[in-house]
Amino acid sequence: MEESWSFLDTFEPNFRPLVVIELAKGTKEETIKWFTKRIVDKKANGGAQLLVKPLVTENGDGTIYLVGASHLRLLLGAEAVGLVKECNDNSMRTFTYSSRKTFKDFADDNHNFLTVAECQYIIKHELENLRAKDEKMIPGYPQAKLYPGKSVVRRLLTSGILVQIFPLHDREELKKLSHSWYGQVKVRYQPLDEIRCYFGETIALYFGFLEYFTFALIPMAVIGIPYYVFAWEDYDKYVMFAAFNLLWSTAILEVWKRISAVMTYHWGTLLMKRQFEEPRSGFHGVLGINPITGREEPVYSSIKRQLRIYLVSLPFVCLCLYFSLYVMMIYFDLEQWALVYHEENESNFSSLMLFVPSIIYAVVIEIMNRIYRYAAEFLTSWENHRLESSYQNHLILKVLVFNFLNCFASLFYIAFVLFDMKLLRQSLATLLITSQILNQFAESLLPYWLQKRHKKRMKKRMCSLKTDTDLSLVEQVTLEKEMGTYFGTFDDYLELFLQFGYVSLFSCVYPLAAVFAVLNNITEIYSDALKMCRVYKRPFAEPTANIGVWQLAFETMSVISVVTNCILIGMSPQVNALFPDSKMDLILTVALVEHLLLAIKFIMAFVIPDKPRDIQIKLAKLEFESLEALKQQ
Amino acid sequence: MEESWSFLDTFEPNFRPLVVIELAKGTKEETIKWFTKRIVDKKANGGAQLLVKPLVTENGDGTIYLVGASHLRLLLGAEAVGLVKECNDNSMRTFTYSSRKTFKDFADDNHNFLTVAECQYIIKHELENLRAKDEKMIPGYPQAKLYPGKSVVRRLLTSGILVQIFPLHDREELKKLSHSWYGQVKVRYQPLDEIRCYFGETIALYFGFLEYFTFALIPMAVIGIPYYVFAWEDYDKYVMFAAFNLLWSTAILEVWKRISAVMTYHWGTLLMKRQFEEPRSGFHGVLGINPITGREEPVYSSIKRQLRIYLVSLPFVCLCLYFSLYVMMIYFDLEQWALVYHEENESNFSSLMLFVPSIIYAVVIEIMNRIYRYAAEFLTSWENHRLESSYQNHLILKVLVFNFLNCFASLFYIAFVLFDMKLLRQSLATLLITSQILNQFAESLLPYWLQKRHKKRMKKRMCSLKTDTDLSLVEQVTLEKEMGTYFGTFDDYLELFLQFGYVSLFSCVYPLAAVFAVLNNITEIYSDALKMCRVYKRPFAEPTANIGVWQLAFETMSVISVVTNCILIGMSPQVNALFPDSKMDLILTVALVEHLLLAIKFIMAFVIPDKPRDIQIKLAKLEFESLEALKQQ
Repeated sequence: MEESWSFLDTFEPNFRPLVVIELAKGTKEETIKWFTKRIVDKKANGGAQLLVKPLVTENGDGTIYLVGASHLRLLLGAEAVGLVKECNDNSMRTFTYSSRKTFKDFADDNHNFLTVAECQYIIKHELENLRAKDEKMIPGYPQAKLYPGKSVVRRLLTSGILVQIFPLHDREELKKLSHSWYGQVKVRYQPLDEIRCYFGETIALYFGFLEYFTFALIPMAVIGIPYYVFAWEDYDKYVMFAAFNLLWSTAILEVWKRISAVMTYHWGTLLMKRQFEEPRSGFHGVLGINPITGREEPVYSSIKRQLRIYLVSLPFVCLCLYFSLYVMMIYFDLEQWALVYHEENESNFSSLMLFVPSIIYAVVIEIMNRIYRYAAEFLTSWENHRLESSYQNHLILKVLVFNFLNCFASLFYIAFVLFDMKLLRQSLATLLITSQILNQFAESLLPYWLQKRHKKRMKKRMCSLKTDTDLSLVEQVTLEKEMGTYFGTFDDYLELFLQFGYVSLFSCVYPLAAVFAVLNNITEIYSDALKMCRVYKRPFAEPTANIGVWQLAFETMSVISVVTNCILIGMSPQVNALFPDSKMDLILTVALVEHLLLAIKFIMAFVIPDKPRDIQIKLAKLEFESLEALKQQ
Repeated sequence: MEESWSFLDTFEPNFRPLVVIELAKGTKEETIKWFTKRIVDKKANGGAQLLVKPLVTENGDGTIYLVGASHLRLLLGAEAVGLVKECNDNSMRTFTYSSRKTFKDFADDNHNFLTVAECQYIIKHELENLRAKDEKMIPGYPQAKLYPGKSVVRRLLTSGILVQIFPLHDREELKKLSHSWYGQVKVRYQPLDEIRCYFGETIALYFGFLEYFTFALIPMAVIGIPYYVFAWEDYDKYVMFAAFNLLWSTAILEVWKRISAVMTYHWGTLLMKRQFEEPRSGFHGVLGINPITGREEPVYSSIKRQLRIYLVSLPFVCLCLYFSLYVMMIYFDLEQWALVYHEENESNFSSLMLFVPSIIYAVVIEIMNRIYRYAAEFLTSWENHRLESSYQNHLILKVLVFNFLNCFASLFYIAFVLFDMKLLRQSLATLLITSQILNQFAESLLPYWLQKRHKKRMKKRMCSLKTDTDLSLVEQVTLEKEMGTYFGTFDDYLELFLQFGYVSLFSCVYPLAAVFAVLNNITEIYSDALKMCRVYKRPFAEPTANIGVWQLAFETMSVISVVTNCILIGMSPQVNALFPDSKMDLILTVALVEHLLLAIKFIMAFVIPDKPRDIQIKLAKLEFESLEALKQQ
């Protein structure tokens, strides 16, 4: 370890550790040498030109390395990843090193021009783009094959030599952020810009959506309260509530697109050119020529993938859905049986028995959900998608459909087969409230408590009970590398999606749902913030321009809710009383109203522009400028 | 006229007249001088650097000028408009003069590298981009104000000094084209590539769509024939026919997107960067700063426009729709009255009276259509849209809705209010067939006959009964400038759109509609081709990548047709006989099927990719290359 790997001394005072690399215990010296050399080597030699420093831990096994970069290197990296920053004239432009002086807050000695999250993203990007040259394998590991252009880090990860790469927390910043985020008991907006600086755009956008969604639910909640308080049962009031809800839910989803465009414009991600996506690490295939890049890389026939999707995955998902429905039917039979049993021999035991089916069903659903999740991940992985984004979309679709059925099938059954509105209301309330409580507990509070216990033990072992900010770097890294990994916003969005379903699908039966959703989301903001700051490793920032496939999912849900609400209103005794002579007229009227509402929804979605006018003008201005520049050439 | 305007002598042998400019009779000498000087002036002096030559006609009033350009000038113009051409390696790339050697078929002496349509488009673009410098007005016309950057040609047009600009036909080429297009009685595809070379992409795309649509209707027609021949009335056959139709119509619209992408990729327009759109000529407003370009130009508040659209145009359209419905109700009353009259006093006169309401209604509809068209054009113009594209979209929407109602309201009334399937079938057949015959007559054959008569007279006057190709340039221009102007593909698409409505909206009642549509479209191809080649002035080529708003219109029609067909099937006596006890079950089943079909439609539209895989790969390759080039910088 005495050799100088870096052209900067690793003990240079301005080395700021940004990213941690953990290698497997017992990694061969030869491999470490080669890998670290590649990291610090000049760009011209195919290196990443970063700084690297081994972390000397107590047991001194030398498997943890800290990666940093010089200020200049980071600026060049910012250009390489295509970061978009604000200029002095308040317009957003793609950063280039040569035009650096025109950017706001740029100064050669201002090391805060790039946020820490951006620096870490740049380092991750540079590490992942460290590509094999003429190596045929990873030195010391003949079984870990390489081919020209293969990402070295990905091969190290898949062959288990590299355990993990994660960005370091910044204790100072984190303390400030958590204080302004959830430290005060005070009604205020979340510090989204600070969250974005610390965690990156994907996570900031999730919290932005969570906050927006909570605000958007408030009018529904406010209108819902009198229905509960005064026990309004007049059909005209219900119709009004449902109609309001449907148009409102369309409007909020459209407005969100505009708000998200404003946010991501100012963060620069709306304008950021999508980088060319490399194959995901799990992708495998015969070595061939990529028709797009002309580079050698594994290729896999798209037809084979389509066959796997349509002949295996699709039938499997359908089977699972069928099985889930079957289980639901058994639950309803059990419920019926328990009711009969209770009626026949009324005792304490029999009234206890009434709860048994629900408990069994809840447990079974939970188990099925988990098994299905594994199966879905396995299948989607087996479908062998080339891109991470397409893998994610297929996974999300699979999990979404199953979760939708699991959560709402019983409610649909109660509503449209049993026609029992009282039971529907009761089930809806039970499901909504219990799922919210369980979620918050399982998702944040439990891990937080476990994490805290673990930290205490670790600190004890290290014999130093200091406060967080006083921790030495070694202690900090040792603590953080044991923390759980945050696997992205999927589960958080899924939770909101299901909540949106509870609120909108049967809104006219249970107007109070929105109230519970609002209350839950307020605490959810706090528990999610806690989770991000205290429970998990810091995640890498990921630039995103919108919430992607979730927008579509929410919009689909709102279309389905038009149908369900119209049917529910049509079934209400008050509306039935209006058509005493002819059920037919009733149904036709309901169908007509439903179609009108759907038409209005689509027209609204079409008429409301996705981006506010000023953002449109700014984008058009940039496009015009680039056209003009092209002409000048 | 003895001055040399051009840096090339106007009598130079390689001057090839491409575009004709007709000035008003009696235009001041000063103005002509200034305008022609601007046209031939060097680019550096703010000119268009084109060639111009006065046409000496018999009466010698000197108001007609021919515009051409040197080969080099056209190549530079092709770069300016961003033409995309095929390279030697078969990829499509934006043409630049410096990389000209890499393009297929390029040679310095090959004057056919650019098609004539492209050359004319380039000249039109250059003429329209001739901008005022420091002139405050058009010399000689103080009322025709100019401001820096105002398009000179547009001001000349709006102030009436410039009568028209149109591209010249190429007699040789036209003869070849018309021979291979409609000259032979032989079943074959249209020569779309040749049409595109001669008339440009917009028109070629229309004929491509017409041909594709005709082919797509054939399966429907083939399946429809046995229904008519064997008078099948079994509900299951009808259901099958309707279900096939619905899925088929979704599929053909999706597949069209793919085919159109393939065509426009090879024509280069799919890749062509949209030019920055200048304000349309009718746009007016206070002089201000355009926030996008920073240039001085008329500006008009978007809020004012919105107010005009929503507070004036929208109510007006609604009123017109209401009025049209009102007229339809009167028609049905008249019809009823005529029937009663005929029954009471059965005579020849009374049976003649039976036709009177239909004739009156048809005439009234035609009158209403024309008045409404004028009103729509006036209103849309008054809405003061800045861009031609947005003007067109608003106009299309207005005209579409009204035409839809006029054509189909009576059928809807017969189907869903009178429940008279026999009358529906009869009306549908009458409307479809008469509208097709009238259209073909009014649109092509009549103008062709008039044009032919006019031409004969002109030729007689010129005392030379030569064949077309022998005409002198003077004679050719004199003939062509009197020909009608083709106002774009709007009416042609509208006709197809309404035909699609006749075929799909009530397909299960009248399966023979598709047969008539196919027959009509085959002759339509010929009559439209005749119209383009013989009746109208040659139109300027217009690069387009797709059929634009019509795709949306056709898709909307196919959604509406799902609803109508489901209702029609639900109303059929055969289906009713299946549910003898409960009308309710029937309606619920129909509603369920309808929702399922709609869901399948949307899923199909979502799953089928809009571009074929090879086009996707080619586009991705280009994008990748430009990203790589950016990195190399």
